[in-house]
Amino acid sequence: KTNFNIAVLPGDGIGPEVVDESIKILNAIAEAFRYKFDFTYGLMGAEAIYKTGKPLPDETLAICRASDAVLFGAIGDPSFDNNPDAKVRPEQGLLKLRKELGLFANIRPLKIYSSLIDKSPLKKEIIDGTDILIFRELVSGIYFGEKFTDEEAGYAYDNCRYHRDEIVPVVHMAFQEAQKRRKKVTLIDKANVLDTSRLWRKICKEIAAGYPEVELDFMFVDNAAMQLILNPKQFDVIVTENMFGDIISDEASVIGGSIGLLPSASIGADNALFEPIHGSYPQAKGKGIANPIASVLSTAMMLDYLKLDQAAEKLRQSVEHAVDNRYVTADLNNQQPYSTAEVGSFIADYI
Amino acid sequence: KTNFNIAVLPGDGIGPEVVDESIKILNAIAEAFRYKFDFTYGLMGAEAIYKTGKPLPDETLAICRASDAVLFGAIGDPSFDNNPDAKVRPEQGLLKLRKELGLFANIRPLKIYSSLIDKSPLKKEIIDGTDILIFRELVSGIYFGEKFTDEEAGYAYDNCRYHRDEIVPVVHMAFQEAQKRRKKVTLIDKANVLDTSRLWRKICKEIAAGYPEVELDFMFVDNAAMQLILNPKQFDVIVTENMFGDIISDEASVIGGSIGLLPSASIGADNALFEPIHGSYPQAKGKGIANPIASVLSTAMMLDYLKLDQAAEKLRQSVEHAVDNRYVTADLNNQQPYSTAEVGSFIADYI
Ligand SMILES: CC(C)[C@H](C(=O)O)[C@@H](O)C(=O)O
Ligand SMILES: CC(C)[C@H](C(=O)O)[C@@H](O)C(=O)O
Repeated sequence: KTNFNIAVLPGDGIGPEVVDESIKILNAIAEAFRYKFDFTYGLMGAEAIYKTGKPLPDETLAICRASDAVLFGAIGDPSFDNNPDAKVRPEQGLLKLRKELGLFANIRPLKIYSSLIDKSPLKKEIIDGTDILIFRELVSGIYFGEKFTDEEAGYAYDNCRYHRDEIVPVVHMAFQEAQKRRKKVTLIDKANVLDTSRLWRKICKEIAAGYPEVELDFMFVDNAAMQLILNPKQFDVIVTENMFGDIISDEASVIGGSIGLLPSASIGADNALFEPIHGSYPQAKGKGIANPIASVLSTAMMLDYLKLDQAAEKLRQSVEHAVDNRYVTADLNNQQPYSTAEVGSFIADYI
Repeated sequence: KTNFNIAVLPGDGIGPEVVDESIKILNAIAEAFRYKFDFTYGLMGAEAIYKTGKPLPDETLAICRASDAVLFGAIGDPSFDNNPDAKVRPEQGLLKLRKELGLFANIRPLKIYSSLIDKSPLKKEIIDGTDILIFRELVSGIYFGEKFTDEEAGYAYDNCRYHRDEIVPVVHMAFQEAQKRRKKVTLIDKANVLDTSRLWRKICKEIAAGYPEVELDFMFVDNAAMQLILNPKQFDVIVTENMFGDIISDEASVIGGSIGLLPSASIGADNALFEPIHGSYPQAKGKGIANPIASVLSTAMMLDYLKLDQAAEKLRQSVEHAVDNRYVTADLNNQQPYSTAEVGSFIADYI
């Protein structure tokens, strides 16, 4: 297969700017490798609410379903954040999209760039050599359990629920990747308190039996929040439920000092979505200062997913070339910063 | 009042050793300030399971109820952790004690000791001057909501629920303390996803109206997990629900590099419990290497609670004297380490 339908959802804030660079680069890849990428744009997030009243219009969902992969920018807008009573919010669009497409696994690789190690809030000797792959379950748990508010009574609840079938696929994926790496999976849970965590532990143990060469470890989420800072090198593959994954993966993302470089993939049985880890960063919108590399490396994960291995490899090399030559945006080099578009073009040209 | 009944629950692992030093020091305080402390010991945790079959025997609960304050060591034993099927676990004792005594607010002050700043995994310029006070709701939320497992169906849930009355007291306490400090309260929640978080936000806003000189901020828990590492100095008082508090307060505890020094208080309407932040650290049990200072500073929080301000002040000075003179255990000075008992005696003698 050499022709691909890519759904493009630029989203809010700096989303459109960084996605533009990914498109530029995908065009360069298409040319270099003789592939064809057809891009179909969809509205999503605050942008979509302003234009259609809905954070995820049906048309956008249809575009995504019909795609080979979804390239996504960022979501979120301060005018909604500061209004907790808003009944429609941008984030709902992303949550609905994950659910509708069945994107059960959110995957975040965390690598430390030696040329950027000084940017980290942590000491060099703590983080040098860190290489973690996080699998977060993405379509169940407390995010999607029953929610209820009784304003009158001043009472609310959110139910965290898991069925075995929602746990098994992401755990298998984690073990499969661990086999290709340092062969260690750590389940992060709170099994000393939660029934759902005990279910996760049980299932992880069962699945581990099928991967005898992979070691399975358990860690309580409170301890994990400490260990990630004290000694991140102890982790290889992490697997965890939705809410713990949200917290732990964001915590992990800052230890390298390069959140503007970190990509993610959200994978389902028939669909997949690729997005940078950073948010919509509205303060930077339209200024040309946003770092496009997280989006570009998400694009590389998309190429992996589409099994375009050579192109993915080439793209990663090009990004490393840019970083090593300090051809980067102001967040990584405020002495001689390049713009979002300059960095994108530099990478595209190298390809 | 000069006579006090103190319930003493040494618990597991290094708990008994560090609590011994607190008792030694309380005896020194009793002498210096002419107070009388009566100590009544109770079983709790793995220790209690081995001896009585229950993690919190009724007798222990009665001792605690009858006390002016509870001094607690640590809980947890690896033989239970590695057996997720165990029906009785040490942690259940602590959770039950919190619930029975109505200890709704867990309070953790986080200060950076300049003489120990090099111990931190974070860079000096990031953490220098950090001073955070965390309030965690301790007797509701997902910890105490309905739990359910259907082994056959492979299904489980944990319900996270909050009633207004469970939120109001800890939020008031947070605002009251903020008034004495830098006048800023940050609510950590996930209001873009959870109904319970939106309830917390609403109530915090209402309560904030009664404290016009205190600024109220909101931060999503995933972002908070990043901000604590990127810029801990931005926080003054943090208030949050039970599970987020568990994760965030443990994360915060490592940024100063001195978890062996950090105390906590758990406060209810009629009872209060004081314990170090660190766990039972079973590997160190009986070796005389455990750092007693977290327990000793928890004792200082107990003296605050009992309104023995002068004694509390004197105790804190004595601890600082020990730390500044590097009269500390191996975790803080492995060149010339002192034993648990030596550090305790040094502090007691200074009083
Ligand atoms: C925007 C928000 C709902 C979302 C989440 O909590 O999943 C985000 O934080 C993320 O991690 O992708
Ligand atoms: C032991 C455990 C149940 C407990 C908790 O999660 O509350 C502990 O981590 C704590 O923070 O005191």
